[in-house]
Amino acid sequence: VVIGPHLPQGLTTPATLVLADRLERNLTRMAAFAGESRIALRPHAKTHKCVEIARRQMELGALGLSVATVGEAEILARKRDSRAYTASEVTDVFVAYPLWADDELLRRLGRLADRVQVTVGADSAQAVERLAPIARDLRVMIEIDCGLARSGVTPAGVTVVAQAAERINLELSGVFTFPGHSYGPGAGAGAAEDEARVLAEAAEILVASGFRCEQRSGGSTPSARLVRPGTLTEIRPGVYVFNDAQQVELGVAAMDDVALMVASTVVSRPASDRFVLDAGSKVLGPDRMSWATGHGRLADWPHARVVGLWEHHAVVELQGRGPALGEIVAVVPNHVCTAVNLVADLLVVDGGSVVERWPVAARAANR
Amino acid sequence: VVIGPHLPQGLTTPATLVLADRLERNLTRMAAFAGESRIALRPHAKTHKCVEIARRQMELGALGLSVATVGEAEILARKRDSRAYTASEVTDVFVAYPLWADDELLRRLGRLADRVQVTVGADSAQAVERLAPIARDLRVMIEIDCGLARSGVTPAGVTVVAQAAERINLELSGVFTFPGHSYGPGAGAGAAEDEARVLAEAAEILVASGFRCEQRSGGSTPSARLVRPGTLTEIRPGVYVFNDAQQVELGVAAMDDVALMVASTVVSRPASDRFVLDAGSKVLGPDRMSWATGHGRLADWPHARVVGLWEHHAVVELQGRGPALGEIVAVVPNHVCTAVNLVADLLVVDGGSVVERWPVAARAANR
Repeated sequence: VVIGPHLPQGLTTPATLVLADRLERNLTRMAAFAGESRIALRPHAKTHKCVEIARRQMELGALGLSVATVGEAEILARKRDSRAYTASEVTDVFVAYPLWADDELLRRLGRLADRVQVTVGADSAQAVERLAPIARDLRVMIEIDCGLARSGVTPAGVTVVAQAAERINLELSGVFTFPGHSYGPGAGAGAAEDEARVLAEAAEILVASGFRCEQRSGGSTPSARLVRPGTLTEIRPGVYVFNDAQQVELGVAAMDDVALMVASTVVSRPASDRFVLDAGSKVLGPDRMSWATGHGRLADWPHARVVGLWEHHAVVELQGRGPALGEIVAVVPNHVCTAVNLVADLLVVDGGSVVERWPVAARAANR
Repeated sequence: VVIGPHLPQGLTTPATLVLADRLERNLTRMAAFAGESRIALRPHAKTHKCVEIARRQMELGALGLSVATVGEAEILARKRDSRAYTASEVTDVFVAYPLWADDELLRRLGRLADRVQVTVGADSAQAVERLAPIARDLRVMIEIDCGLARSGVTPAGVTVVAQAAERINLELSGVFTFPGHSYGPGAGAGAAEDEARVLAEAAEILVASGFRCEQRSGGSTPSARLVRPGTLTEIRPGVYVFNDAQQVELGVAAMDDVALMVASTVVSRPASDRFVLDAGSKVLGPDRMSWATGHGRLADWPHARVVGLWEHHAVVELQGRGPALGEIVAVVPNHVCTAVNLVADLLVVDGGSVVERWPVAARAANR
């Protein structure tokens, strides 16, 4: 599938585009997988940050949203004055993060819990204790580290956190983890196994200690579809809605599954095998995993590599024929979550035209 | 200088702070260097994107601003309806970029040139020719590559571009380069030499071919103060206003010269030598040069290293005593230009209080 000739006419670049048909296909595929596997789907909204996409996820059967911050939830969840309940409204959010709630965050969480069901993450007794003033309005999930060495307790550490929740009458829903070590070539299956094993261990310890543990929540885009039925109760993939160069290079998605790309103009051609695009790190994002072949990929030029990236320059190397000076090409960012967060809105393309403009409503909602 | 105890009370994190005294010192130092060296200072505004800082740079004697995009110029330059001319207004902008001007950009450049002096960059005859409809309103600088292998012609390639400018009656101001290969340990001096030599070569070729070449413009923060009098006519450093972890690790700035940092809370302490901060790549920026020791630095904990960075987690390793759960620490981003572009405004701190809030006015002005 060649993108270039089907780009809307008159685009000014750089422009961040969403291909509507591919987005819809990605959304329905993951929803179908979750349905067939009888695992609840709670998509991570930090990837898209768009009300429009959150609503479509809900329509397709998502249980609710995962978010990284209270701010994302405030923006994407059902509003207090929302009149009619519809299937597309987000009424259940999980802040999948080890929150440290100061007074301001407590007030905001309390107000949020007035309108929707709110669950927060925690990985220490101290963090749980801070939730005491609003404990009856919330639920908590305990974060377990399944191999990423980021936040989260070991399965053995789960009891201390559960006891803190019990002391303040905070309802414990279960355990969650982020198998982020799935982000490596061939690492998805092992990470999915780690995730299932570690969540099962933690759940067992909780139950043996007299606690309830109904939820086992995991799932990243590289590992989500490797989850075996019966191991997890919910998955929280985010990137799958758009995919990106990382997913392509990991073999998780094909280039034709990539639903977001940055239209970019060839502004310089200083050598026969090198050209420069006006999409730099301020629109693509500077993310580059150690195993990535470059700073993003070109949708229509599979052999091209983005060998250098500055704020407003992407330097591309390509042997043989390439795009001409002034030509517009489609660049696939390495990490789409970062790319989305850099722009005010996304141009939705359908049938070769820009049909809508979706605000990145929760852009920079880092708190 | 310990920052932590002097952070304003009641900060919600992550919060991007500017330390007013350090900013002022950085601004005056570079202005003094330029004055003493008799080199014009045309600071690059892509770093700060703030009207307030642009104005202070002008008051301190800057000739005008460098910008990366027409959008940055539109936002930061003197407005058409500006009544009183003051020394702090930006009346001269250089778009230091090889612009490819389509019709929309031509219209905008034309309108911009109605209010201020506009110079644009170019590195091909084709790019110059596109400027024909507004050629009499602009000036052009030819970009030379002095070793970065990004955009820019070789000195020998300068004549073809100059001839194109002559054909369309576009005034040629001179030549410019970005010595970006100064961004490596010990590389500043060599890059400054490359820059001076290559600009001199290009200028000589232009003059020998009958063209004028009054301006030789260069300068990055690591190389700017290594420029020898008489070699360049202007420098365009950007990062020097704030500095960042890259400049500290390159030895270009001391930690006490860093004027921008992200206040961040310790949200998790999963191991005795590891803690997690709520400042991730969506506020610090994911930039990491190959030689960087981590994903940013902690202002008060010189031995700490940010060993992992995700969108909302910075994982810090530190042997021995470190900050406690819930403590707020100051994180210095690797690359400040990216960090500034991620937030809507900067909190200006003076005497331990937030005294102002400066909008990042040209945030995401990528076009």
